[in-house]
Amino acid sequence: MRPQDVIRKKRDGGQLTKEEINLFVRGVTSGEMADYQASALLMAIFLNGMNDDERLALTEAMLHSGEVLDFSDVPKPKVDKHSTGGVGDKTSLILAPLAAAAGLAVPMISGRGLGHTGGTLDKLEAIPGFRVNLTLAEFRQTLERIGYAMMGQTGTIAPADKKLYALRDVTSTVESIPLISASIMSKKLAEGLDGLVLDVKTGGGAFMKSETDAKALAEALVGIGRGAGVRTVALITDMNQPLGRAVGNRLEVIECVETLRGRGPRDLTELSIELTAQMLIAGEVKKEIEDARDVVRNLLETGAGLEKFRELIEAQGGDAGVIDDYTRMPPAAHEEDLLSESNGYVAKIEAEMIGVASMLLGAGRVRVEDEVDKAVGIVLNKKIGDTVRCGESLLRIHYNGAEKLDEAKQMLRAAFRFSEEKPSPQKLIKAVL
Amino acid sequence: MRPQDVIRKKRDGGQLTKEEINLFVRGVTSGEMADYQASALLMAIFLNGMNDDERLALTEAMLHSGEVLDFSDVPKPKVDKHSTGGVGDKTSLILAPLAAAAGLAVPMISGRGLGHTGGTLDKLEAIPGFRVNLTLAEFRQTLERIGYAMMGQTGTIAPADKKLYALRDVTSTVESIPLISASIMSKKLAEGLDGLVLDVKTGGGAFMKSETDAKALAEALVGIGRGAGVRTVALITDMNQPLGRAVGNRLEVIECVETLRGRGPRDLTELSIELTAQMLIAGEVKKEIEDARDVVRNLLETGAGLEKFRELIEAQGGDAGVIDDYTRMPPAAHEEDLLSESNGYVAKIEAEMIGVASMLLGAGRVRVEDEVDKAVGIVLNKKIGDTVRCGESLLRIHYNGAEKLDEAKQMLRAAFRFSEEKPSPQKLIKAVL
Repeated sequence: MRPQDVIRKKRDGGQLTKEEINLFVRGVTSGEMADYQASALLMAIFLNGMNDDERLALTEAMLHSGEVLDFSDVPKPKVDKHSTGGVGDKTSLILAPLAAAAGLAVPMISGRGLGHTGGTLDKLEAIPGFRVNLTLAEFRQTLERIGYAMMGQTGTIAPADKKLYALRDVTSTVESIPLISASIMSKKLAEGLDGLVLDVKTGGGAFMKSETDAKALAEALVGIGRGAGVRTVALITDMNQPLGRAVGNRLEVIECVETLRGRGPRDLTELSIELTAQMLIAGEVKKEIEDARDVVRNLLETGAGLEKFRELIEAQGGDAGVIDDYTRMPPAAHEEDLLSESNGYVAKIEAEMIGVASMLLGAGRVRVEDEVDKAVGIVLNKKIGDTVRCGESLLRIHYNGAEKLDEAKQMLRAAFRFSEEKPSPQKLIKAVL
Repeated sequence: MRPQDVIRKKRDGGQLTKEEINLFVRGVTSGEMADYQASALLMAIFLNGMNDDERLALTEAMLHSGEVLDFSDVPKPKVDKHSTGGVGDKTSLILAPLAAAAGLAVPMISGRGLGHTGGTLDKLEAIPGFRVNLTLAEFRQTLERIGYAMMGQTGTIAPADKKLYALRDVTSTVESIPLISASIMSKKLAEGLDGLVLDVKTGGGAFMKSETDAKALAEALVGIGRGAGVRTVALITDMNQPLGRAVGNRLEVIECVETLRGRGPRDLTELSIELTAQMLIAGEVKKEIEDARDVVRNLLETGAGLEKFRELIEAQGGDAGVIDDYTRMPPAAHEEDLLSESNGYVAKIEAEMIGVASMLLGAGRVRVEDEVDKAVGIVLNKKIGDTVRCGESLLRIHYNGAEKLDEAKQMLRAAFRFSEEKPSPQKLIKAVL
């Protein structure tokens, strides 16, 4: 079996066998398959697709290119959540402590933000001292002791994904459902999970703009998860406006703490409850979703989730005092409101433009190697459906340098659309697969 | 404009501009575009195709990656022929001297055989002393003095084609009409032609098995030629059995000399006359095809074509005595007839199997670097439509070593199909575009 025979088969629309997919993934990591052969195959996969069996085989080959964690000695159901990313999407910080408080073990390996979307690790690092670069031993210890642990990707997990992603990035083969889903699932399955809840975002601020595309990705992800023997459920959720009100690392941590106190924005609270409840179902802690939701609501009321978060911050070297005194996370030097020039209802908030504006302020990255300013960001005072009067604040900008402030403000203003009639409400959770 | 943007555009089915195609071709040769980007684009072109304008732009970019010959000071119409290759396809050796004798200048740059198909250069080298590695100055001199010259590819002509072909070969992106046609035409247009006749083979022994595919390739080639301002015509011709009777370098040279003497096999003679006549039309030496055919028939009768061939052999350092004494080309050590085990009519001769058997005897190459045995080969005694009796010779095998003789004989026998009824005759020339 030669690399070019595998390429030819996929080029002609054939179905690759497990062995052929293994040759590809092993070949790419070992150098046995040249990059120019791998990229030709990537393009053939991009254009001709992969069926369920191929996607599972690709995921498993990528998974087994590196270390697979084994938490079978942790006597709790191991369940994680993965989101495809959006603007103001901060549910991980809320649901992980809630799920841990409800008896799950959540071994959460997360990423950093890039472009208009934020990343869990950047948010955690807004907390002074918080360490995301744990050793695997520390990660395991924290998971056992607290019930959850949060760290960044290690080089030993799914190295084939790193190599393939770099190649996809420069050969315009990123936006492919089989390649995206195998990339996501190879890293998640490496966590040694019993259950997995996927939050597939759809809308202007999401990777998948249309609900059809989001559904196709969700189906691919669920197919892989279940094929690999992990109880997997996917929610398709709205990303037509930022989730919650805060965008920017420190501001989002504050919003998470408020939400864990039961004082969070309605949409963020609702989605966090739903995702956590689905985790409890996936972990077989509860059988009925309404029971699971009640458990989560109760944890919010009693503050048990917030206490878990406090324990985690301490366990990972952070200053847990931030929970009671937000100024222990250094705030931005300046704040300024963006005032409405219109009357009426907020009809639309382009989430991607809010994300880009936040990035311009320094909260996000253009390139992987860029530094992030934890303090800066945006807090929305109006969301879709709210009434607004001329001169009222649409949002508050937290900034340090003023270099790109005007550009950011222009973009923020352009992100808002107004209407005279109240827009019809959009469903936050569009489907459960 | 980044390479990945060009890849993305073709991936999404877009039409590339001249500038984008230039970036690709220049980038591939300069290294500005990485091989893994080029191969992703090649696969996108393979799967999404290219339209007329793109094919012309690709050809011209490849053409101008190297030297373009200029024979504008040679006061004759410059016309060449190109064949897509087949088994026993030896018309170049016949039509080039005929066309030169009729007043054309034929600057013919040819290739070597690979796989089951033979190459003009290997055939010419069966003549002791014949030099195909001319300098460009020698090539020009010979063209001016004799009216034609025959040489191999130089490194300075269309270097992008060499680089791209090497990449296509290992990434399974060879069989693509835009890529094939640009490869062929970039090399032919580098000859500085006024006219070009294309012989696109179709059938079991050809690269294009189906007439539909052959027609699509022919249309692409003609479109590029005419787009580049060269009078171009394409013939679609039959390759369901070997052309003529001889397969193997020395044996084919002998058959060419016999044909130039007017004693050649009917099909080879007919096709050589037609191709030469079309060259005279393309070169505007004649207006009417029937007049052009008469000119060529007359050159065969008077032996003027053969005399041109003799002049060329002498001009390029070969022993012209071979024309009158075939033994001056060393024959194979052994000959053996393959006898029929059937009675009836020859219904089919699988040209590809004849070509592979000839390669097994040593007449062709498996790899580019293989040496070729000029003496060995096959002479068919029966062709499609001939009656055959059990015990009669189907063909004569000329061989040196006996190592692969049995394998070759098995394949040769398997190439023949017999029928009780006379098969309906197939057209040799299927279409003229």
